[in-house]
Amino acid sequence: MTPQVAIVMGSASDLPVMEKAAEVLGSLLVPFEVRVVSAHRTPDDARKFAREAAGRGLRVIIAGAGGAAALAGTLAAHTDLPVIGVPLVATPLAGLDALCATVQMPPGFPVATVAIGEWGATNAGLLAARILALSDPDLAARVAAHRRGMAEKTRKSSRDVARRFAGGR
Amino acid sequence: MTPQVAIVMGSASDLPVMEKAAEVLGSLLVPFEVRVVSAHRTPDDARKFAREAAGRGLRVIIAGAGGAAALAGTLAAHTDLPVIGVPLVATPLAGLDALCATVQMPPGFPVATVAIGEWGATNAGLLAARILALSDPDLAARVAAHRRGMAEKTRKSSRDVARRFAGGR
Amino acid sequence: MTPQVAIVMGSASDLPVMEKAAEVLGSLLVPFEVRVVSAHRTPDDARKFAREAAGRGLRVIIAGAGGAAALAGTLAAHTDLPVIGVPLVATPLAGLDALCATVQMPPGFPVATVAIGEWGATNAGLLAARILALSDPDLAARVAAHRRGMAEKTRKSSRDVARRFAGGR
Amino acid sequence: MTPQVAIVMGSASDLPVMEKAAEVLGSLLVPFEVRVVSAHRTPDDARKFAREAAGRGLRVIIAGAGGAAALAGTLAAHTDLPVIGVPLVATPLAGLDALCATVQMPPGFPVATVAIGEWGATNAGLLAARILALSDPDLAARVAAHRRGMAEKTRKSSRDVARRFAGGR
Amino acid sequence: MTPQVAIVMGSASDLPVMEKAAEVLGSLLVPFEVRVVSAHRTPDDARKFAREAAGRGLRVIIAGAGGAAALAGTLAAHTDLPVIGVPLVATPLAGLDALCATVQMPPGFPVATVAIGEWGATNAGLLAARILALSDPDLAARVAAHRRGMAEKTRKSSRDVARRFAGGR
Amino acid sequence: MTPQVAIVMGSASDLPVMEKAAEVLGSLLVPFEVRVVSAHRTPDDARKFAREAAGRGLRVIIAGAGGAAALAGTLAAHTDLPVIGVPLVATPLAGLDALCATVQMPPGFPVATVAIGEWGATNAGLLAARILALSDPDLAARVAAHRRGMAEKTRKSSRDVARRFAGGR
Amino acid sequence: MTPQVAIVMGSASDLPVMEKAAEVLGSLLVPFEVRVVSAHRTPDDARKFAREAAGRGLRVIIAGAGGAAALAGTLAAHTDLPVIGVPLVATPLAGLDALCATVQMPPGFPVATVAIGEWGATNAGLLAARILALSDPDLAARVAAHRRGMAEKTRKSSRDVARRFAGGR
Amino acid sequence: MTPQVAIVMGSASDLPVMEKAAEVLGSLLVPFEVRVVSAHRTPDDARKFAREAAGRGLRVIIAGAGGAAALAGTLAAHTDLPVIGVPLVATPLAGLDALCATVQMPPGFPVATVAIGEWGATNAGLLAARILALSDPDLAARVAAHRRGMAEKTRKSSRDVARRFAGGR
Repeated sequence: MTPQVAIVMGSASDLPVMEKAAEVLGSLLVPFEVRVVSAHRTPDDARKFAREAAGRGLRVIIAGAGGAAALAGTLAAHTDLPVIGVPLVATPLAGLDALCATVQMPPGFPVATVAIGEWGATNAGLLAARILALSDPDLAARVAAHRRGMAEKTRKSSRDVARRFAGGR
Repeated sequence: MTPQVAIVMGSASDLPVMEKAAEVLGSLLVPFEVRVVSAHRTPDDARKFAREAAGRGLRVIIAGAGGAAALAGTLAAHTDLPVIGVPLVATPLAGLDALCATVQMPPGFPVATVAIGEWGATNAGLLAARILALSDPDLAARVAAHRRGMAEKTRKSSRDVARRFAGGR
Repeated sequence: MTPQVAIVMGSASDLPVMEKAAEVLGSLLVPFEVRVVSAHRTPDDARKFAREAAGRGLRVIIAGAGGAAALAGTLAAHTDLPVIGVPLVATPLAGLDALCATVQMPPGFPVATVAIGEWGATNAGLLAARILALSDPDLAARVAAHRRGMAEKTRKSSRDVARRFAGGR
Repeated sequence: MTPQVAIVMGSASDLPVMEKAAEVLGSLLVPFEVRVVSAHRTPDDARKFAREAAGRGLRVIIAGAGGAAALAGTLAAHTDLPVIGVPLVATPLAGLDALCATVQMPPGFPVATVAIGEWGATNAGLLAARILALSDPDLAARVAAHRRGMAEKTRKSSRDVARRFAGGR
Repeated sequence: MTPQVAIVMGSASDLPVMEKAAEVLGSLLVPFEVRVVSAHRTPDDARKFAREAAGRGLRVIIAGAGGAAALAGTLAAHTDLPVIGVPLVATPLAGLDALCATVQMPPGFPVATVAIGEWGATNAGLLAARILALSDPDLAARVAAHRRGMAEKTRKSSRDVARRFAGGR
Repeated sequence: MTPQVAIVMGSASDLPVMEKAAEVLGSLLVPFEVRVVSAHRTPDDARKFAREAAGRGLRVIIAGAGGAAALAGTLAAHTDLPVIGVPLVATPLAGLDALCATVQMPPGFPVATVAIGEWGATNAGLLAARILALSDPDLAARVAAHRRGMAEKTRKSSRDVARRFAGGR
Repeated sequence: MTPQVAIVMGSASDLPVMEKAAEVLGSLLVPFEVRVVSAHRTPDDARKFAREAAGRGLRVIIAGAGGAAALAGTLAAHTDLPVIGVPLVATPLAGLDALCATVQMPPGFPVATVAIGEWGATNAGLLAARILALSDPDLAARVAAHRRGMAEKTRKSSRDVARRFAGGR
Repeated sequence: MTPQVAIVMGSASDLPVMEKAAEVLGSLLVPFEVRVVSAHRTPDDARKFAREAAGRGLRVIIAGAGGAAALAGTLAAHTDLPVIGVPLVATPLAGLDALCATVQMPPGFPVATVAIGEWGATNAGLLAARILALSDPDLAARVAAHRRGMAEKTRKSSRDVARRFAGGR
């Protein structure tokens, strides 16, 4: 199937974290592709990728990068598709640098920034699904089911914990 | 026309900043509505608003809040629509608190966070437009034209500045 | 006995830290209960929990959460009981995000925030006890004894250290 | 009437901010007193104040200070009453220093920390009221009414804003 | 004369600060040019500018930008000339975002980052001059003279201050 | 009289803040001198100043600087006298940069760092006085009197404030 | 011998770091004592310790604490001796909280703050020695020798490194 | 061959990180030397080194230091050669202190600051190479080849990753 979402990262070393986005999309049956494209090492590839994305049928781009994380913003500069940015921990500054470099985009070029690291990679996948679900009722149903599943799991763990501390004082 | 985007803010005092989102949406001919809903002062209204949003025809929610900015996350907990968060400057911490409270969402509940303050409000409007343009070719054309307009303006200011410093040394 | 304090956390993975609050309350003979309730995964449970808390005899709520920690504020929005917030380390930002999201509450909805992580969980238990001791002289005596015990322990460690370095130069 | 709450601040220059706590308590008919006591300039007064507080009928202490804000913690070290800390902006660090110095208390000595500056002063008054309302049904009713008043005000401003942007696009 | 240094900025609104670089270069008789080029609004212009820079005789590029400041890094990705980055204050985060986005470049693409704002713009000009002076003894002499001038000025102000406080106690 | 304390600053523009140190020393009758010496603009003067300081009768050096504040550390590298560092606000980073650059000295070269800005300049004067008072009983008496004066002033302002809010509720 | 320096820490768990101060003082033959005194757990001991310090012959106090590190400031409030503060890492905030709580003292009560953690403990010992050396020429000679030793060691490591990379290209 | 670049560090313990600069220079056939020189432990050596650098044929100086990292600025104060600063992680503040102390140089004394730690050491070597390549076409060719090599490696890892996730959904 034609990928609807691209998961792009600045370096292959980002894969263990960005894989979380792939897992979410896979579990929601959203077709996706994965690429390593760098705003600095392969800027022309990044440009070409972004300019051709819509034409190839892609509808959402997820971009993860660390440090002076310019990838998501660079892609957003070359496409009108929604771009989701995942700030990664790649330097001693714990991802605060990547967060600033991803979210503080100048007016005109939004990057939909999610949390730093694994939480963010997971949420990037879900945000892409929420966007695609606007025009895909089946996906919307799967997204809703996923949400109910999380609630159920939380309720179960609450019952377990409550029981363990029952009569606590 | 049925609003497709809701611009929600935690306090009427946020309006001068959040109005930038309205300006962008208006200029792109995207129908929208504006509400003041607080995650803390009117939590039941926030819940009701989010749960009814999709049914009312809304497709994207923009939420701006400052301090312990829980609004966007609260809305995202009650709807599957994409929620865009705008961290606002409302305390001495310069919006860093609102940024953390908006972007660092736990896995399962993405908030598409944009820049702090006015830049973010403008970009929230544009991000909503990018999302809606996925299924609205006319809007896509207007978004593309808006981008070209920005490029033209930048090119013109470059020529002005270049001329002013011509022969500089 | 009817629990007087509820220890609530956003995820079962927070338990190893939040258990410190349970230990303190247990050692002071304050009856308590423990629940997993999430502002995002189970927002209706959070709402119901907070709205019923006073009626069920609860008098203080302790809420621990990490990241965009909205739990304590959400509970404070649905009850007039005092709510104590414990910011937890759940992301690369070392709890600074949870601290901002917990303490910077807008006027109207105070969250009594304590330190990040284990120190905070312990102090949340003690703060709850201080509040309950206002109308419970026996508990007040136990709180005072607990304080004297800490002082004694510190004095003993001072004597040990002083002896070890006696004649130091 | 015997004051039930003491509002203490490190310097008279903190009064314009800390007055917000007095306003809230006054509007809720909670008797209070105001003092200037410094952990550094008048440490013996601080000690005496804290040790005598419970005996004088005080039930909650609100302490505001800036910079290396030791006041709330110092008071908490000399009394078992609940102590609420308000970090103030008194240095170029925008209250981040006072927040750290107030909230990061070692296990054993909780300070119920609220937001930096005016938001915090208001919330300190409300948190004191929540605590006192546990054993004062009339105050509880006033606190609940105050909450309803805030909700009403937010709803009204939402209607105003919605009307202003009606038909927006 | 052929410009040897290009002063590039992301927005014409950066000019009042970036002008400091022009002043320094002018006073050292280094020919320069000034351009407005945006990594996001005119990415193709940025790419073209960087790729042609060496061929046009430019030897150093100074790039100033605020927020998610990608400009200097983008230019460094398309040229092998030394690129100097000036982080600017354009958002409520006081330039900390631009500093992170400018200096934390991944290995392979150095940006010679200088101080935030005016200090940085001035130092960018001087750093460019130091680099050019490596192969231009006359410029080296002017740079050395500029340094001596600063020392003289500092010494004079020290004498003034010393006199003013003479006999101080 | 021979100055016992030197107040050194990196730039004459620091004088309005550093004057606070002079005021304190003057009021305590400690003879002092004031100089502008820069670690960067006049490094040889800084070196000479520090190396000759003890021989000229100076006993304590106070150094104020902003940004990458190297002055105090540079002086500490060239003298064994105690050096007090005052981090100043000279950049958009609100003195946090100067604080880091002043206090985080490597083992071997302590700089006695005080608060950022005016608070710090005042405290630098008092710290110098505390050090000199170790061998000057008259100065010790003046320092003690100064402390008592501060306490008296605080007590008076407490009485004023207490009276103003008497009967408050 | 009568101790001239007291090394005080808030908890026995701080000893492995604060021992560095003891090592330095021991190596410089400065008699010292070590105590565990807490601003919060044993505030009366802290007060008594500080008030009696000068009378017992102590001349400098070194205080190490983490988190809301009030110890050094509390001691400085009760004595006119110079107090050196060592901010320790005891919470997830990496000592930034302790640094703020130690250095940002209000005007009137200087704490001579040194670096966070081990660097600071070592430098606290050396700063105390610099202060005592003002009236102890033998100690001054040992301090100077210690400095020369550090320089020698650095020079040797430079020769080693230079040799290892000789001919490097 | 006469070294063209000096790699200087404040402590031999910085070598494992600073070696990255040596590796880059070595791979680009740029002759270099390595030294341990401390702004604080051997300030006269630092001064002598900087003053003699140009005369010895050095053209660029790379200086790495942690904490209150004064080394690069000190060298820049004594030479007109371009100085590249590498902020290192040497304290609990994760290199943020060294970044501030390196980059925030006052106007007049630029330090070309690169990223914190290993990324920065590598980039320092490359920045030096870019500067030297301005007058060395052979080196320019090697720098360009190095860039192409990075792009190739990224493209290959993209193909690997794309294949691994082909058909992903």
